[in-house]
Amino acid sequence: MAWDTERTKRLLLDAATAEFSAYGLAGARIDRIAATAGVNKERIYQYFGKKDELFAQVLATRLRSSMDEVQMTGTGPEAVGDYAGRLFEHHLADGVIPRLVFWEGLERGAATAADLDRAAYHEEKVELFRRLLPGVDRETAGSLLLTIVSLVNAWPVLGHLDGFLMGDGADPAERRRAQIVGIATTLAQDALDAATGAAREVPDAASGAARS
Amino acid sequence: MAWDTERTKRLLLDAATAEFSAYGLAGARIDRIAATAGVNKERIYQYFGKKDELFAQVLATRLRSSMDEVQMTGTGPEAVGDYAGRLFEHHLADGVIPRLVFWEGLERGAATAADLDRAAYHEEKVELFRRLLPGVDRETAGSLLLTIVSLVNAWPVLGHLDGFLMGDGADPAERRRAQIVGIATTLAQDALDAATGAAREVPDAASGAARS
Repeated sequence: MAWDTERTKRLLLDAATAEFSAYGLAGARIDRIAATAGVNKERIYQYFGKKDELFAQVLATRLRSSMDEVQMTGTGPEAVGDYAGRLFEHHLADGVIPRLVFWEGLERGAATAADLDRAAYHEEKVELFRRLLPGVDRETAGSLLLTIVSLVNAWPVLGHLDGFLMGDGADPAERRRAQIVGIATTLAQDALDAATGAAREVPDAASGAARS
Repeated sequence: MAWDTERTKRLLLDAATAEFSAYGLAGARIDRIAATAGVNKERIYQYFGKKDELFAQVLATRLRSSMDEVQMTGTGPEAVGDYAGRLFEHHLADGVIPRLVFWEGLERGAATAADLDRAAYHEEKVELFRRLLPGVDRETAGSLLLTIVSLVNAWPVLGHLDGFLMGDGADPAERRRAQIVGIATTLAQDALDAATGAAREVPDAASGAARS
């Protein structure tokens, strides 16, 4: 029955998401995923293929959901800062995306680079992001998005570094969210200024590096 | 003999560094480290303790070396940008620090947070970093250093995202290095402006978030 198939797939994806988030790709056990889902492990190979392919589908599913859940709206530097802040909140609450993103980088970066579906997903994301900053070129927008994604995903994984470098705080996550909003807004303003030819009081060398 | 002990320790640390960088903490095998070093594995427990402690010593050793090799010199925003650029080059050439940093975050963040030696290392690093920006408070400096460290370490691990978001380039590493120099310089300039009360043409909300 189709209903059972969809339900079984969902149970397997949920179990696989938790397993990969906790243990990474090499550390994940198909037996454990099957047991958690209460499904025969042969179904995993039947529906998703090898463990590596299951990982790719887990992360792709999660990233697609996040693009629906964290919309890019408005235009201008504040819209970029607002998007960065909501992405930070989403990924922190989600709890697994930042871990999956870095497990992926450590364990299957090359395989991911060759994944056409992922390439299409990121292309779509850059194009949506560019609408926030009309007039800014593809490379500058891509660079800013890479910076936002790096900072948003790094923080939940490197939480111990926040403690070391920033000291104790009443709400470290809120403090870091506000910092990332500020960083994204500032860099978006610079990108827009560069695109529209507005001058800014910074040394030439630094300005050149920021806008190259 | 003392000479033999030091040589054996160094062989073991080198082998452990390669093993942890490739496989992470859970994936690393003490047997493989011993075999690569050509040393009986009992020596590992004798000199370094458990696998988890060996990991901590491997990363601490590497981070200490990097602090000696990438000096913080000069003052002002350009000095911060210059430091960020040299740290990027160093970590990319080193090849293992970014991987070890993220394996650590994924696999032993809590244990690291309780490590007093690591706390002392980071405290020293923040104090050196603050000398680059006289007048900037501890929290703002710590935030900027966290941003630099996050971006510098994330890039080698998330290289596939650079390809997706930035497209092909003749020299992606040099392109990203220049971007990070620009980001660090801009944010350092803002931190200095805020500390010295200089005005900047940005919306109030964004400015508040960046300087909170």
